[in-house]
Amino acid sequence: MVELSRRRAIEDVASELFRAHGYAATSVRDIARGLEIQGPSLYAHVTSKEDVLWAIIDRAAGRFEAAADAATADARAGDPAAAIEALVRAHVRVITEDVGAAAVFVREWRALGDERRATVLHRRDAYERRFREVVETGIATGDFEITDPALAATAVLSTLNGIPGWYRPDGRLPAGRVADHFVDLVLRMLQGASR
Amino acid sequence: MVELSRRRAIEDVASELFRAHGYAATSVRDIARGLEIQGPSLYAHVTSKEDVLWAIIDRAAGRFEAAADAATADARAGDPAAAIEALVRAHVRVITEDVGAAAVFVREWRALGDERRATVLHRRDAYERRFREVVETGIATGDFEITDPALAATAVLSTLNGIPGWYRPDGRLPAGRVADHFVDLVLRMLQGASR
Repeated sequence: MVELSRRRAIEDVASELFRAHGYAATSVRDIARGLEIQGPSLYAHVTSKEDVLWAIIDRAAGRFEAAADAATADARAGDPAAAIEALVRAHVRVITEDVGAAAVFVREWRALGDERRATVLHRRDAYERRFREVVETGIATGDFEITDPALAATAVLSTLNGIPGWYRPDGRLPAGRVADHFVDLVLRMLQGASR
Repeated sequence: MVELSRRRAIEDVASELFRAHGYAATSVRDIARGLEIQGPSLYAHVTSKEDVLWAIIDRAAGRFEAAADAATADARAGDPAAAIEALVRAHVRVITEDVGAAAVFVREWRALGDERRATVLHRRDAYERRFREVVETGIATGDFEITDPALAATAVLSTLNGIPGWYRPDGRLPAGRVADHFVDLVLRMLQGASR
């Protein structure tokens, strides 16, 4: 338990440093300083900076996946607008609940080593496929007016993944309002003029 | 002239390396190798890796600004939909004409030193303001159904700035079709149900 909370503290401090200065410009020593521990003691918990990056990205990916699982289970079957709304709300919630980790996930996954980067790419593809499948369902039911579902799904996720670039928990927009706005913008993108 | 083309060659090679491996993972030696010149000879043209990054980002920012200037001059006054379409087409064209530089601009500006990063942030803000002002005009004329123009402008640019993550000049979608799709998606986002 102590071990787990120490690992979380390392990830949280590292997320904020990676977010503020970038992964490349942050050293293991910077992370140790943020935790007010000595460098060598940090190495008892992590073997490399990339391991910390991986821990942050792996956990963030898992949170996006779990949230999408729950959203898919909740959404009414056969209602693509409700399904995409649930996916967008889940995605925005994961971002706003831990915006530091989300920023690192979105920006720094390319800094991982080849094998881990391939794993993340694979999981990102699978995650994006959930959005694309709902778009395809919406096209089939006539709810969505989209000619290129793959491009639309990519565009929706690009729209949402800009949020870590500006969202702040103490900012002018509370997380729930951010989600409301993006649900609205995304539904408009997909539904088109026939709504 | 030779000097200019050599600087451009350095920027092009560096853009592709930064895009593929990230700024942090690319060394001046990697850039020199890509140019098939020796490291010391490269230092006759650039004094640091950050100078190359700055040259790429400064030129990309200038291209975005010039394209938006031209788009604003071209668009019919008083037609916010035409104005946003012109801005979106200009933005997508700058990305697709040099997707390596666009990827570096979008992803790596945080790696610049404090002063240059502040300059880029300032220029990004001014650029985003062009989009926001058109959105505000569209709200005033009743063309756009938007309650938060600042958030809408940010969302539009996030949507477009995902393009360097997947666009390839030899990919399935030619640049003109990409622009058509994104004009459509962005206009839907802004126009809402009343279109």
